Amino acid sequence: MSSQDSESISPHELRDAWPVLSLEERVESFKLVPHATADVFFLSLPAKEQAELILALPTGERRTWMRLLAPDDAVDVVQEANAEAKAALLAELDSTTRHEVMALLAYAEDEAGGLMNPRFARVRPDMTSDEAIRYLRQQTRQKGETVHEVYVLDAQQHLLGVVSLSQLFQAPPGMPISEFMVTKVFTVTEETDQEAVGRLFSRLGLMAIPVVDAENRMKGIITVDDIVQVMQEEATEDIQKVGGMEALDAPYFSVGFVAMLRKRAGWLLVLFLGEMLTATAMGHFEHEIARAVVLSLFIPLIISSGGNSGSQATTLIIRSLALSEVRLRDWWRVARREVVTGLLLGAILGGVGLCRVVVWQYLFQSYGEHFFRVALTVGMSLVGVVLWGTLTGAMLPFALRRAGFDPASASAPFVATLVDVSGLVIYFTVASLILRGALL
Amino acid sequence: MSSQDSESISPHELRDAWPVLSLEERVESFKLVPHATADVFFLSLPAKEQAELILALPTGERRTWMRLLAPDDAVDVVQEANAEAKAALLAELDSTTRHEVMALLAYAEDEAGGLMNPRFARVRPDMTSDEAIRYLRQQTRQKGETVHEVYVLDAQQHLLGVVSLSQLFQAPPGMPISEFMVTKVFTVTEETDQEAVGRLFSRLGLMAIPVVDAENRMKGIITVDDIVQVMQEEATEDIQKVGGMEALDAPYFSVGFVAMLRKRAGWLLVLFLGEMLTATAMGHFEHEIARAVVLSLFIPLIISSGGNSGSQATTLIIRSLALSEVRLRDWWRVARREVVTGLLLGAILGGVGLCRVVVWQYLFQSYGEHFFRVALTVGMSLVGVVLWGTLTGAMLPFALRRAGFDPASASAPFVATLVDVSGLVIYFTVASLILRGALL
Repeated sequence: MSSQDSESISPHELRDAWPVLSLEERVESFKLVPHATADVFFLSLPAKEQAELILALPTGERRTWMRLLAPDDAVDVVQEANAEAKAALLAELDSTTRHEVMALLAYAEDEAGGLMNPRFARVRPDMTSDEAIRYLRQQTRQKGETVHEVYVLDAQQHLLGVVSLSQLFQAPPGMPISEFMVTKVFTVTEETDQEAVGRLFSRLGLMAIPVVDAENRMKGIITVDDIVQVMQEEATEDIQKVGGMEALDAPYFSVGFVAMLRKRAGWLLVLFLGEMLTATAMGHFEHEIARAVVLSLFIPLIISSGGNSGSQATTLIIRSLALSEVRLRDWWRVARREVVTGLLLGAILGGVGLCRVVVWQYLFQSYGEHFFRVALTVGMSLVGVVLWGTLTGAMLPFALRRAGFDPASASAPFVATLVDVSGLVIYFTVASLILRGALL
Repeated sequence: MSSQDSESISPHELRDAWPVLSLEERVESFKLVPHATADVFFLSLPAKEQAELILALPTGERRTWMRLLAPDDAVDVVQEANAEAKAALLAELDSTTRHEVMALLAYAEDEAGGLMNPRFARVRPDMTSDEAIRYLRQQTRQKGETVHEVYVLDAQQHLLGVVSLSQLFQAPPGMPISEFMVTKVFTVTEETDQEAVGRLFSRLGLMAIPVVDAENRMKGIITVDDIVQVMQEEATEDIQKVGGMEALDAPYFSVGFVAMLRKRAGWLLVLFLGEMLTATAMGHFEHEIARAVVLSLFIPLIISSGGNSGSQATTLIIRSLALSEVRLRDWWRVARREVVTGLLLGAILGGVGLCRVVVWQYLFQSYGEHFFRVALTVGMSLVGVVLWGTLTGAMLPFALRRAGFDPASASAPFVATLVDVSGLVIYFTVASLILRGALL
């Protein structure tokens, strides 16, 4: 690490080196960052690393960093610590924030309540814009909160409307807020799932969204910067599940070797046990294979085509469900569309497969006198297998969602395994129909 | 659709019905939304639907809606229209905004320049906090811009620092901004890729980020609400690629049947042509299969295990690269880790596979006198195939990134296809070594 001043480290240098440093090295390097920029660096760390860092600092230095955090971020940090350390971290907060943080800790981490900041700018509807600006200056000076939008509440904390700072700035100085506030406000409740909150932000392009209780009393706000991290996490989880493993919940190099092995071996074993059924199924067709070895040559081609078309369909539907582009009740519309799609995709691959066999026969005489029946078997099987794979892949996420599971568990490898066994049955059934009397 | 007032439609009702309405029905329903809330609804639509809606309205009504859009959002709408309609839409804007929009249209859609809003709140470093607040009130009243953070620029537009509105509110009235502004500002340039911008937002928890040119002159800001949509899109693209299809770029039901079929058939055909190599490879082992049909029984089990372990590894690395948790230069660290992981995963599956053969032999006498050699062949092949699948899956995204392609193209089905052919070769090579003199 080079530095102009050998005694200090720039935040950029530290950020580059950070992932590979041990906890001791992190603490040492962190102390060398000039104080003026250390807080920018500290605030940019994930909650887990903030917690580790604070707990590794001498007791006297912890307070500064805990108090730098907004209540909702302090909650995340406290949640990362074990029971004993939790108490120690809470003790560093001033008593108002401590009460707020303890109230927030009661919410589930993945609900709106667990994301919200109980501090927000509030005004009364009968204030003028001038009064409101003066009042906000005072309010923020005392509490040090960040102003995104200003919420208009009555004396019972009911949410009446919202004004942006620009609207406040633009309004004639003497105009009461009730005359220009926006009364149509999108809200969520404390129990709204964080994925739903994320969708709302992304669809409406909001900067902050108020959290209200059942009586429309305002509890706090969720700001878009918190939801951005949530959305990245949710997308990563979905991608990892689609690829056929348990969600990791942490960066690649941060997951211990054994933990990683366990997460990956688990799913692989489940898939392997499922795939064992192919050996059983194949056992039933051993006699046919012995009589017509040529049949075995196309087994990988045929079952993988079912798997591929199934992965494709399942991935498409999983993501559409996650983004609410497709809803549970649309399953029948999707099924009809996928049947037609599957038939056409199957016809395309089947046609290519049939040609492949015929051409190879003319070039290399690979498949004996009954080559055309073999070609027909391959082609017809592909239509059936691709249709079946597409339909299974498309319907499985609906079935999982209906049964209360995460549709993303219908991973590409899971669907492929499911389709492999039925693909073999389809292939050998078609073969016995077409090749009876010829090869079989 | 029910409504208390039969003449008007609430935005909520309209939002529910919207996806299934034709363009004519959309225009008719939109006109029935009370004017006070119509703009909230309009702003919540995706750019594409905003463009369609505006163009379907009578010429006289277009102006209101075009002028409601911030310059960066107007750019998105104009980009959705064809050449002729583009000019018509631009003509509806006031001349200042039109020039801004035309300048923004020159940027690539997926670069920072294409996302930025050229309007932002700016102050001089020598203003006091009181002067700045007065000045901002005036500025926003004239230009109607949204204030997130206030940027401190010198006379040549160089970015000197940033103050949040709360900091401005909290500062003593007479204090010059230069004394409390934050001078450590994270910036991007106009050419920064939008994925990189998204990562910066998610890592730093920012609300807005300034865009500067090479001389640190400020060009505009990107706000987090715009990046949220970008991030959803990028995640969807990655998930669809991992599942083995071209990215759709639109919701499931909005993609025409033929367009959808083309996108899916393309990748399936590529995979199918690759998978045809398995038929060729199998052709080379036809003689062995004819002599030992029992070998064919385990082909699906063995090649799918390679495919599954490969999908898993590739998905893991693709997402880690996308989130910059793993960098290109880490490939060697990843390779070493994945070799050990692959060996252990292979040993686990191989052990289970070996037991499966032995147990079935004792229960059903399925595999003849040489059953233990068969079991050994299956077990050893699984070790080799899983190790190979894991390593290939993990290294492929690095190779693609290195060659300038999107690592997400290393989809699970793509890796599975790649591993299938080599899996067959491994299996039959191991078989010929272990079964020579016995079955072969």
